[in-house]
Amino acid sequence: MYPDSIKNLVEAFKYLPGIGTKTAERLAFSVLNLEDEQVSFFSNSILEIKNKIHKCPECNSLTDEEVCSICIDQNRDNRILCVVEDSKTVFLFERLGIFRGKYHVLEGLISPLEGINPEDIGIEKLLERLENGQFEEIIFAFRPSIEGETTSLYIKRIVEGMQIKTSRLASGIPIGADIEFIDSLTLERALADRKTVE
Amino acid sequence: MYPDSIKNLVEAFKYLPGIGTKTAERLAFSVLNLEDEQVSFFSNSILEIKNKIHKCPECNSLTDEEVCSICIDQNRDNRILCVVEDSKTVFLFERLGIFRGKYHVLEGLISPLEGINPEDIGIEKLLERLENGQFEEIIFAFRPSIEGETTSLYIKRIVEGMQIKTSRLASGIPIGADIEFIDSLTLERALADRKTVE
Repeated sequence: MYPDSIKNLVEAFKYLPGIGTKTAERLAFSVLNLEDEQVSFFSNSILEIKNKIHKCPECNSLTDEEVCSICIDQNRDNRILCVVEDSKTVFLFERLGIFRGKYHVLEGLISPLEGINPEDIGIEKLLERLENGQFEEIIFAFRPSIEGETTSLYIKRIVEGMQIKTSRLASGIPIGADIEFIDSLTLERALADRKTVE
Repeated sequence: MYPDSIKNLVEAFKYLPGIGTKTAERLAFSVLNLEDEQVSFFSNSILEIKNKIHKCPECNSLTDEEVCSICIDQNRDNRILCVVEDSKTVFLFERLGIFRGKYHVLEGLISPLEGINPEDIGIEKLLERLENGQFEEIIFAFRPSIEGETTSLYIKRIVEGMQIKTSRLASGIPIGADIEFIDSLTLERALADRKTVE
């Protein structure tokens, strides 16, 4: 049916999650309409992201430099460490510019149900960093979930002897949300974590 | 925020229609999880589709051979020509295996509203082919639309002196559809084109 060159690109697009045959076909045809420079930029970018991007040896976040730009930044607060479940959270926080401390990226969250144990998510590397660093507080910035809670509690228990404060992102009602559309677990948490009006 | 290699691939994915920043970010990160061979296959396929695919000099359909496999196929019926608005229709018909004649791909449909005139869609090339060929019938396989009707009528009028029959795909109720969800134009057409029960 399709000439090979089209068939191949359709197959390649289907490697990506959430892309089925129909979408892959639409995308493959749209590549035909790109300018020559766009096509070579696209093709190169795919190779480069795989060749250049690696994990920062310090914080485990994705970077294309030897050590990531956040770890070598002398102006950031070395006393607060934000522990996240993947690099995307780092990029999101940086885009919003809401945090000036350091980060540490785990390899996911503990999930006994899926067979993911503490040793699978690189907690040892985090502990090593805490022992050698001067951190006074670690903030868990995980998605609100059983796995997030489990991972927070596990790490909290280990660092208890280290004179390091542990905290997590506040749960509650998002700004601007309509209270009647909030799920009961969030409402319960918002009630339990209520703040004095000052 | 993002390392350059990630930023570049996000930009590249955004070249594609229907892909915004969020989707482009998701896709770029998913490339990181592909195998090395998949990445180079993906990267190559993008270059190849642009370098190898061109229009068949005979029928104007997309091909990566000198003349497309349908045009050089001696076993196809040279008396029936299916005129379509783009190569996708050719690939669709071939996948379904429902037509054994030849094809001719126009460069779109006549649309006075959008300023697309007969000379813009390559009708001359079609006429040349009709004059030199032995076609007895041409079938218009356009999407049902004003533009499709206009283009069919325009070509029909030109070929009237050529002893060539013109026909179009039947309009009507799709098999399996519920009659109450069919639009009025389709129903009107289905009524006008009614067939004797034999």
